[in-house]
Amino acid sequence: MSSTPEENLITPKIKEAAAAQLEQIRRGTSEIIPVEELQKKLERSLATNKPLRVKLGVDPSTSDLHLGHTVVLQKLKTFQELGHQVLFLVGDFTAQIGDPTGKSETRKQLSREDVQRNAKTYADQVLKILNPSKTSIVFNSQWSDPLKIHDIIRLASQITVARLLERDDFSNRYKSQQPIALHEFFYPILQAFDSVQLRADVELGGTDQRFNVLLGREYQKSAGQEPQVCLFMKILEGTDGVQKMSKSLGNAIGINEVPREMFGKIMAVSDAVMNRFYELLTEHDLEKIKAMHPKEAKVRLAFELVERFHSTEEAESAASEFDSVFSKKEMPSDIPTIGIPGTSMSLTKVMAEQSLAASLSEARRLIVQGGVAVNGVKVTDTNHLIEGVQEAILRVGKRKYLRILFAQK
Amino acid sequence: MSSTPEENLITPKIKEAAAAQLEQIRRGTSEIIPVEELQKKLERSLATNKPLRVKLGVDPSTSDLHLGHTVVLQKLKTFQELGHQVLFLVGDFTAQIGDPTGKSETRKQLSREDVQRNAKTYADQVLKILNPSKTSIVFNSQWSDPLKIHDIIRLASQITVARLLERDDFSNRYKSQQPIALHEFFYPILQAFDSVQLRADVELGGTDQRFNVLLGREYQKSAGQEPQVCLFMKILEGTDGVQKMSKSLGNAIGINEVPREMFGKIMAVSDAVMNRFYELLTEHDLEKIKAMHPKEAKVRLAFELVERFHSTEEAESAASEFDSVFSKKEMPSDIPTIGIPGTSMSLTKVMAEQSLAASLSEARRLIVQGGVAVNGVKVTDTNHLIEGVQEAILRVGKRKYLRILFAQK
Repeated sequence: MSSTPEENLITPKIKEAAAAQLEQIRRGTSEIIPVEELQKKLERSLATNKPLRVKLGVDPSTSDLHLGHTVVLQKLKTFQELGHQVLFLVGDFTAQIGDPTGKSETRKQLSREDVQRNAKTYADQVLKILNPSKTSIVFNSQWSDPLKIHDIIRLASQITVARLLERDDFSNRYKSQQPIALHEFFYPILQAFDSVQLRADVELGGTDQRFNVLLGREYQKSAGQEPQVCLFMKILEGTDGVQKMSKSLGNAIGINEVPREMFGKIMAVSDAVMNRFYELLTEHDLEKIKAMHPKEAKVRLAFELVERFHSTEEAESAASEFDSVFSKKEMPSDIPTIGIPGTSMSLTKVMAEQSLAASLSEARRLIVQGGVAVNGVKVTDTNHLIEGVQEAILRVGKRKYLRILFAQK
Repeated sequence: MSSTPEENLITPKIKEAAAAQLEQIRRGTSEIIPVEELQKKLERSLATNKPLRVKLGVDPSTSDLHLGHTVVLQKLKTFQELGHQVLFLVGDFTAQIGDPTGKSETRKQLSREDVQRNAKTYADQVLKILNPSKTSIVFNSQWSDPLKIHDIIRLASQITVARLLERDDFSNRYKSQQPIALHEFFYPILQAFDSVQLRADVELGGTDQRFNVLLGREYQKSAGQEPQVCLFMKILEGTDGVQKMSKSLGNAIGINEVPREMFGKIMAVSDAVMNRFYELLTEHDLEKIKAMHPKEAKVRLAFELVERFHSTEEAESAASEFDSVFSKKEMPSDIPTIGIPGTSMSLTKVMAEQSLAASLSEARRLIVQGGVAVNGVKVTDTNHLIEGVQEAILRVGKRKYLRILFAQK
């Protein structure tokens, strides 16, 4: 077989450089389909000096990003650092349909106004991570809004009902006789159509996006394009270390949380969760991290993440505030410790029962006066619940401390 | 409960008149859903002197109508004679999708040109039966063509995948892992949308259209309209008396067939098929027909149908031609009779084997010379197959006859 001019450009040195890029890209992924095609695309990109077009589609149905959302953003950043172009697709059109992925019931359709407001906030937050000069922010309403019935019929004729019902959530809902409204089938199809419109080389997604992202390959092939490589990231667990990070599960760390809260929440996670955060949110060598003292490693992680989403100054001040509260100098070494069942408890109740206040009403007064802190963060809400995974440190006044150990399930 | 002004108009006399209309409409139907609503609509129509809007949707994927297609047309004619308005909907848009109803595989989509040509021929033929002044011919491309994606999503959100998979043909294909292309789901939805656009009071269909027609009720309710009554006609069997009349099964009588062929084909059906034709294609009192001699009844039916689709003159001449060939005066009473297996046989072969010709080549020559007729119809094709259900009469020259009895399955 004769080789194409492009193939002639691919020297052993370029193959090696592409393999090095691939190695860096591979970290934290659960799957790359097919990995050989990614190697080829990277080689051609290097040989022709043409950046890959790397797509991430997001559904702006929420505007509050948490660390879980940033896993794929960090990977996009890696692509940018390797010279590639990011296509950050805001699914402002598809959000109006509502992605049923992973949901056990039909989702409410969002209004156009909600979607646009969320989309703007989303894009603002994303540029805290991505390099704006290598990021194209695009909205799929641009090509989806003008679609007419003939276009829809053409797109729909390229897929079978059985293929769509293979998707886990559709399949489960169909089997358990939960309704699937027909318009929900459009979500994966229009997401695949986005890849055609963008001529994407690579599409990123969480593993829960597997079906939709793979469908992009089929629609690109039908449109006569080289199919995109599908890259799936591992899903980040929440602070509980068990379930997927999610605002509604209460185990999320939001990227807009104030510095000292973000710092405190990261310091409170288990060592296993910390290691996972390092793997998926940073590019540090994991062997070196494991060689560090866990406390030191956790401080470093908390510092870096606060710095990333706020600033170096705020990271420094959050670190020193945390340190002053938790350092041995100020905190007695013999803090009384109690165990409680579950993972949350009323603050005033703990104070009254553990003699940190004479009564529930005194406990409320102390809180209102600003003399009570949990994990170094002052509490002002008299209905506050102490929540945690492993432990929480309660301070009342200057010197009264209590360590609360939560019973693990 | 106080009654509405409309209800006050509904006198016992009107109720009786509506019941009489209903009785006439009911003939030949397999189901009216719900029949009480049809009675109410008829009463209101009589009381307010407002005709009902009676819809029939046809898919112009074929342009050759046969008697089977005219069963619903005859029912529309009954509605017209009772004073109602017919909405003859040509599914020129949906035909491009291809209705998968009753088909075991995805149908080929028709081109816009095919559809328009077929639609015109279809409409011309239909006006042989319907009263043009009480017929509105409408095309669903008028409101379907302009549909945009938002409209489609809205329509699709009103139905579930499970509901669509309840339709027999979809259900069977899904279970037997035959592909169902997603766009096929649009057919029933757009047919239902037609009823909304037309504000139909009644929709007619064959029993195979049950799902699509019932869906119209749901979409009308969602649109805040009073739902249509669904009226399903029995399916007309073909000349074999067994299977649904269908061109591809070779058991059809086309409404454009030349008079003497139409006449001859009707004369050749069994008495049971004749009775069914009377039931579904005419308004004659069936008791009176049964009291007639079957031969006489068959002649009358053949005459009426040729008259309907051609003219009185042509019916008369077809009848007299048939009579001259088959009357006792000209046909010997002792025709030799043979039985053959199956339902068809080569004409030349029969002639040679039964000594009506000296050889195959003489048989061919006799045919070319115009001296051979089957069931009174001259044959000019030397490759002609004699086909029939019960029997066929072969004539060679002026006086040689042979009766062929086909073995019934």
